[in-house]
Amino acid sequence: MYDLNIEFRSGSEKCLYEQIYEYIRREIREGKLRPGERLPSTRSLAEYLQVSRSTASLAYDQLLSEGYIASRPYRGYYVCRMEELYRLDARGDAAGAEEQGGQGPAEEKIPAVVDFSPTATDMSRFPFSVWRKINKNVLSQGGGSLFTQGDVQGEYSLRETIGRYLHSSRGVNCTPQQIIVGAGNDYLLLLLEKILGRHVRIAMENPTYKRAYQIFDSFAYEITTVDMDEAGMSVSGLRQSDVTAAYVMPSHQYPTGALMPIGRRLELLKWANEAPGRYLIEDDYDSEFRYRGKPIPSLQASDTQGRVIYIGTFSKSIAPAIRVSYMVLPMELLERYRRQCFFYSATVSRIDQKILEEFIKEGYFERHLNKMRKHYKEKHDLLLEGLTDFEEDFRITGENAGLHLLLTGRRGQKERELILAAQSLGVRVYGLSDSLVGKAAEQPGHTVLLGYGGLECQDIDKGLALLRQAWL
Amino acid sequence: MYDLNIEFRSGSEKCLYEQIYEYIRREIREGKLRPGERLPSTRSLAEYLQVSRSTASLAYDQLLSEGYIASRPYRGYYVCRMEELYRLDARGDAAGAEEQGGQGPAEEKIPAVVDFSPTATDMSRFPFSVWRKINKNVLSQGGGSLFTQGDVQGEYSLRETIGRYLHSSRGVNCTPQQIIVGAGNDYLLLLLEKILGRHVRIAMENPTYKRAYQIFDSFAYEITTVDMDEAGMSVSGLRQSDVTAAYVMPSHQYPTGALMPIGRRLELLKWANEAPGRYLIEDDYDSEFRYRGKPIPSLQASDTQGRVIYIGTFSKSIAPAIRVSYMVLPMELLERYRRQCFFYSATVSRIDQKILEEFIKEGYFERHLNKMRKHYKEKHDLLLEGLTDFEEDFRITGENAGLHLLLTGRRGQKERELILAAQSLGVRVYGLSDSLVGKAAEQPGHTVLLGYGGLECQDIDKGLALLRQAWL
Repeated sequence: MYDLNIEFRSGSEKCLYEQIYEYIRREIREGKLRPGERLPSTRSLAEYLQVSRSTASLAYDQLLSEGYIASRPYRGYYVCRMEELYRLDARGDAAGAEEQGGQGPAEEKIPAVVDFSPTATDMSRFPFSVWRKINKNVLSQGGGSLFTQGDVQGEYSLRETIGRYLHSSRGVNCTPQQIIVGAGNDYLLLLLEKILGRHVRIAMENPTYKRAYQIFDSFAYEITTVDMDEAGMSVSGLRQSDVTAAYVMPSHQYPTGALMPIGRRLELLKWANEAPGRYLIEDDYDSEFRYRGKPIPSLQASDTQGRVIYIGTFSKSIAPAIRVSYMVLPMELLERYRRQCFFYSATVSRIDQKILEEFIKEGYFERHLNKMRKHYKEKHDLLLEGLTDFEEDFRITGENAGLHLLLTGRRGQKERELILAAQSLGVRVYGLSDSLVGKAAEQPGHTVLLGYGGLECQDIDKGLALLRQAWL
Repeated sequence: MYDLNIEFRSGSEKCLYEQIYEYIRREIREGKLRPGERLPSTRSLAEYLQVSRSTASLAYDQLLSEGYIASRPYRGYYVCRMEELYRLDARGDAAGAEEQGGQGPAEEKIPAVVDFSPTATDMSRFPFSVWRKINKNVLSQGGGSLFTQGDVQGEYSLRETIGRYLHSSRGVNCTPQQIIVGAGNDYLLLLLEKILGRHVRIAMENPTYKRAYQIFDSFAYEITTVDMDEAGMSVSGLRQSDVTAAYVMPSHQYPTGALMPIGRRLELLKWANEAPGRYLIEDDYDSEFRYRGKPIPSLQASDTQGRVIYIGTFSKSIAPAIRVSYMVLPMELLERYRRQCFFYSATVSRIDQKILEEFIKEGYFERHLNKMRKHYKEKHDLLLEGLTDFEEDFRITGENAGLHLLLTGRRGQKERELILAAQSLGVRVYGLSDSLVGKAAEQPGHTVLLGYGGLECQDIDKGLALLRQAWL
């Protein structure tokens, strides 16, 4: 058995499992533990180190999930081959936002003390006990039919409930027949590819939501990036681009936070109405969180000709684990869906659909949204207030909605420098260039994103203090 | 308000809600209730007819789910437009197996007394209380991290558990890294399209699993159907076809029930090894249910060169509502997946993954499978015994595994005639031609499928008696 001489530092801030994990990771990276080498079982590791077995398991789980080690059925844990290791590293970097910054050797990377991730959400206020109760009720009352496969578009009653919610909160006009429920936006986009067909020429703003870009790119859609101003996608740019579809986030553009005013919306709709087969894909991903002014109806609400494909998700508004999104199809595309895609089975279990339906119907969803809006606003206000000192050096934008805002250096500070300076003090901020595509991505500017959704108030304060030190 | 003069027949076998549903459906079909016309609310309908409100709701739900009526948020129920109605009809027919037979006006369609559906499963023995218990434990112990998004490939611990199960029960050799968990086979095939790339030339048996055919067809894959014998896909046919991939079900071909012997498997693997980029897609959809002889290891188990893409599902072995399937990728394709598909997020909630993991780990899955195998075997034996009388007129095949068997007329009886004769006595059987593709589908033969998975023993007896009357 490989001899693991881990010296536990009792004064360390790190708990035992982290120390074990880091020790083994270092041994692997430095080649002392070699590819294919077998690790002790969790039981014998625990005995040897005099720690609990669950501590040893936690360390291995972490190594497993990061791909340093692998387990083989009934044979224990092995060190992964090195190419595999590097591939995993490459993958981590490619994943973009998650791994931004810290290009030095990973061993030396300082773990972030405060992570202003623009994609993190806050689960601490989630009504777990309500969710459990509904879960229990649904399972005990549902009976056997709950376990059958159900409607390919999603349960009718859930679609009705979603339709009602979308109508009242987002002004969306549709019948439940037009709604397709699916396991996440990515799946719905895969389905949309089959509906719209291949070789679609699609326009996207730049910067845009990178994941959607990557997905459209994997479709071999011809993607044209169109410039944007404060109002969103430039319509003259769109007209020049000879596309048949445009992907937009009119209620809260990611990452700029821009809200598309009604004038621009109508121009976009006019473009879509001018030729048959033109569509606008509206990704309404986090429109629930708006802090200033009235809620903004969706673009779909202004669409009288069936030109808007509306997509939204509960992953952001309820919890990331809730893999339920919805797509509202115009009638023309609904027909195509029924002709061309009727054989794609449902991707969300009826049980989960029923739980979600009850959560919405019983008013818990609305209550949760109101609570979270208030809670996020507190963090938002705290961050914005704390940023007053920064205003001389930075322009602050995107502050009216969503879970992040943008800081643009007024004195020519470079994105990369800002990120590294923050990182040196243990603060992680994110570059706008993560969301740029094409040539624009090669010329990063002066803007960083600060997300606050996942941070507690004291962390925001701490992060602000460190950023002041780093940047001002 | 439209006047609904429903006369309830007290002696009728049909319950009240069915009578209301059928009345309104007839009124719509006959044009007495016109498109766009508003229906009374469930409350006023209930009052008017002196039935409970839930009875009225049930009737409307049925009409809604069949697309006769639509509901609009806060405005009530409306009769659908007629084109919409016809489209829904067309869709039902296109869905194939589900709607086979009964081409007369739907009003006159006699509801099947016994439905030998080859795709139905039996949920009556599902361990609901165990499932509820695990559900409760997972939710109460899991904490907030359960509600986060999790690994794109599926939770590592679930993949380990699946890998162990596949290794011990199906001989599959893989690490958890090679497993991708997804919301159903259809989703995994969509993902596979992105991994394999466009313009794949794929071979399928004929007859084959129609849904997989439809899905590959929607990919614009070039599909070549290859003849099959009792051993499965003809390898000389495959060699002539100039394809790069072949879709097979070696452990239990659908619909023929053929088991591919090891010789044929090795020939297929040899073909795959002869040129780079060739793959075999193994759909191991219901290999759990085999009644004669030992369990057959998967094709993947014999693959030493990483040529087999293995796909399986829990929808068949646990419950159709469990939208969890798994795909085992060879290393070469795993690399491509990581390069090209890392941005596709997980489609199964962590909560559902954890419940499934516990269900398997705690031994409930194996126990359930054993119980169901025994239970399905009882039905299988009963049906097979009852078919003794039929042997003079029919050849019986596919009887060693799965949840259906095949009857082929020895006296030139045509598939369509057999279906209609059965239907006239209220028995639904299914034509082999539902699973034929291309020109072969235009020349239906003499074979019908009898599924028994979803039938109780007394229904099998009843069905057999009626079929004796219809066919002998």
